[in-house]
Amino acid sequence: MPGPARRCSIANALAVIGERWSILAIREISFGNRRFDQIVRNTGASRDILTARLRTLVETGVLERRQYEQRPPRYEYVLTEAGQALQPVLLNLMEWGDRYITKGRPPTVWRHECGAELHPVTVCAECREPALPDQLTPIRIGKVS
Amino acid sequence: MPGPARRCSIANALAVIGERWSILAIREISFGNRRFDQIVRNTGASRDILTARLRTLVETGVLERRQYEQRPPRYEYVLTEAGQALQPVLLNLMEWGDRYITKGRPPTVWRHECGAELHPVTVCAECREPALPDQLTPIRIGKVS
Repeated sequence: MPGPARRCSIANALAVIGERWSILAIREISFGNRRFDQIVRNTGASRDILTARLRTLVETGVLERRQYEQRPPRYEYVLTEAGQALQPVLLNLMEWGDRYITKGRPPTVWRHECGAELHPVTVCAECREPALPDQLTPIRIGKVS
Repeated sequence: MPGPARRCSIANALAVIGERWSILAIREISFGNRRFDQIVRNTGASRDILTARLRTLVETGVLERRQYEQRPPRYEYVLTEAGQALQPVLLNLMEWGDRYITKGRPPTVWRHECGAELHPVTVCAECREPALPDQLTPIRIGKVS
């Protein structure tokens, strides 16, 4: 990575999952499409790039590679706890894409268990009120080294 | 982009902001560091790559480039409404990085206006209950074309 930079968990997160095909692979696996050929087909990634991205995601603990057949040996990918914890990132990316980028109606729509069509909102865990920029003040900001 | 793929607002969003330096530039601008040299220094991006990323973000309506000095002409970058709406994505990425990737204490910590240290939770806008994967069912899923 070129030069020094701010200490930051966003940057650290992006070092692991900050690449288009990684996120799209995680999306497919969360949809239940766990096999390499399914992930290739549904993301449009090249096989070489996807192989590299899946390997990184396994090494960094976001995915687990599991053998589901002995002869011939076949593998599938499942989300670890860390991988499942990416769901809010994906839901908020989807909502943002629906609102600002996608032309026409949203391609994917979820129903929440309350019965409503899901529109995710990010709130403070303590008070359950929205966490908007003007409601936040820094306790500390990562230093630039 | 290689081959067909699933119609998806996550993929569409990533076509605009799905690159490490784009997200880190948006982070810096949301911190109030709006000038090119500040963004270079605090992200660690190369000047060439950052120039290209900022141009894309302006063209796609995430940032606005504003002249703040006449002689010499100087510019700064501000978040548009679409750019501000990325805040939940950044907060959730930060929380995930804090929990699963960063070693040691979180570099950046926010206080919510309720007084608590912010831990973002993604909830359903309608009922304000968490939007976890096992509480969601698809109304529709984007097709693979």
